[in-house]
Amino acid sequence: MTYTASFHAIEWHNQQLHLLDQRHLPHQHQTLSYNSAAAVADAIRAMVVRGAPAIGIAAAYGYALDALAGRDLQHAYRVLAESRPTAVNLFWALERMAALSSQDPHVLVAEARQIHAEDIQANLAMGQFGAALISEGSAVYTHCNTGALATGGHGTALGVIRSAYQDGRLQQVYAGETRPWLQGARLTAWELMQDKIPVKLVCDGAAAQLFRQGGISWVIVGADRIAANGDTANKIGTYSLAVLARQHGIKVMVAAPTTTFDLTLSSGADIPIEQRPADEVTHLNGQPIAPAGCDAINPSFDVTPAGMIDAIVTEKGLILEPSRETVAMLFAR
Amino acid sequence: MTYTASFHAIEWHNQQLHLLDQRHLPHQHQTLSYNSAAAVADAIRAMVVRGAPAIGIAAAYGYALDALAGRDLQHAYRVLAESRPTAVNLFWALERMAALSSQDPHVLVAEARQIHAEDIQANLAMGQFGAALISEGSAVYTHCNTGALATGGHGTALGVIRSAYQDGRLQQVYAGETRPWLQGARLTAWELMQDKIPVKLVCDGAAAQLFRQGGISWVIVGADRIAANGDTANKIGTYSLAVLARQHGIKVMVAAPTTTFDLTLSSGADIPIEQRPADEVTHLNGQPIAPAGCDAINPSFDVTPAGMIDAIVTEKGLILEPSRETVAMLFAR
Repeated sequence: MTYTASFHAIEWHNQQLHLLDQRHLPHQHQTLSYNSAAAVADAIRAMVVRGAPAIGIAAAYGYALDALAGRDLQHAYRVLAESRPTAVNLFWALERMAALSSQDPHVLVAEARQIHAEDIQANLAMGQFGAALISEGSAVYTHCNTGALATGGHGTALGVIRSAYQDGRLQQVYAGETRPWLQGARLTAWELMQDKIPVKLVCDGAAAQLFRQGGISWVIVGADRIAANGDTANKIGTYSLAVLARQHGIKVMVAAPTTTFDLTLSSGADIPIEQRPADEVTHLNGQPIAPAGCDAINPSFDVTPAGMIDAIVTEKGLILEPSRETVAMLFAR
Repeated sequence: MTYTASFHAIEWHNQQLHLLDQRHLPHQHQTLSYNSAAAVADAIRAMVVRGAPAIGIAAAYGYALDALAGRDLQHAYRVLAESRPTAVNLFWALERMAALSSQDPHVLVAEARQIHAEDIQANLAMGQFGAALISEGSAVYTHCNTGALATGGHGTALGVIRSAYQDGRLQQVYAGETRPWLQGARLTAWELMQDKIPVKLVCDGAAAQLFRQGGISWVIVGADRIAANGDTANKIGTYSLAVLARQHGIKVMVAAPTTTFDLTLSSGADIPIEQRPADEVTHLNGQPIAPAGCDAINPSFDVTPAGMIDAIVTEKGLILEPSRETVAMLFAR
């Protein structure tokens, strides 16, 4: 599997799944090994691995692990499906594994590896489609982490950014730090610095002021689930950036493989939004940053209406001016 | 000096200035003592004390301290004026001290105490004017810290919130955590919990999603400097909230004493914006939260255009639909 990032977040070898523990990046580079669906489900819930495509790939390997161990695959399906509610790639990958007629562990492992390889291919295709939209000399703004850490290898939104940089189109990447988990600060900045792509961190509340100064052509983000009308659930803060981008004449690009679409959902109102514990807001690295007992809201995602998105980039091509009709056209190809 | 908060951030006794060290709240309550203008300037720069009105009061006491010690008052003026660039109350308070015909230390101390007392009176008046704009059963959103910690005692925006809660108008306060310094999490949540006012913390990037859900009637913020046309410099993230509030039909209130106006500046474009070090974004409590060597932008303030503000609340009354004309009308009273 060939891609351009200089590290591996998800690896399969010696009949085990190996995950780079993203909770401790960028300070510690620790890889954890897994040999059951239940352990992989725990890793997904605890955010050892995160990012919608990476969650799907990890779940597929988790399912294969229980097949290798001769465990009940219906149970494996259930425990993995319950790990996180919003990313649809998780359910897509599990469906694909469960739909195989064979229950031969080696067939299931091969299928998980195939899901992984296809995700990287999809990322590279998205990278090319998305990069073509970016004019030379641009600065772009991204949110959360959608790179090689969040996918099979190259990245969705960060894959577009990586491809655009390799094409010589990008001057500067601004990465929103993405509270409360700081995926921008901890993961995106780390990935871009690893690959020597110029990055500056931005506190989420400072994006509007930066947008007003000019020079940024696109906000480029990933997606956790996209409804049939193009409404897009993504990391909390994305909707905010879309409103602010529109106010300042900046375009919004969503980069996501077609597996991120959930065509059974009519609109974003139907997408379940995970509410996570308040202590993820009130604590950082286990240290309190607010008074003891302080309450907080902590929705993990928000929904950006299709009308605020200029382009959805998939491995099958672009959806410009996303709507029920333009989404359907892509899937009818 | 009577006000409603249950603690004191700035106190004068035994011929010394005593400041509650806000860098370590809410976890440690440590008071530091000062006996020179230079030391007070260091405290302002290091953000032991912050908030535009509180900076002005501390500077006045710092000036008086050098008078008590028989030091050069021109030097005291200069060192204090250079401590932070954006808050105009600092320069206003120093001008008022320097304009006294007497250089009798006791007269100067009395003047500093008078500045402190007047600020509290102004806060209480703003509290009444602002609270009257809030309909019963409201939820409001605030940013940064503008309470008893940021002023002489009651607060500007948080003074309005305190007064509105005492009037029985408020159901819920949402406090934006306010990266990078987390004044919302560390200070505003602490103040409100001290006074038993219901507060929920919100990551800055989650405000838009919260606004969309409905139920919030006002965004209420303070100001560091207001130009003659009503353009308002305040903590970074305020402009973002104003754009998002407008998108969702939420009104924006700025609460600031008339000493925060700088009528020599025609518009917000003339307000100097302090750029602080990148390590305030990449580190938290001295711990790195981004890769070593990561770059970041860190503007301390942004400017919200007058046209995005529904009301500016001062101790002299309200400015509705702020503009060059309505600002001038208030000052002509």
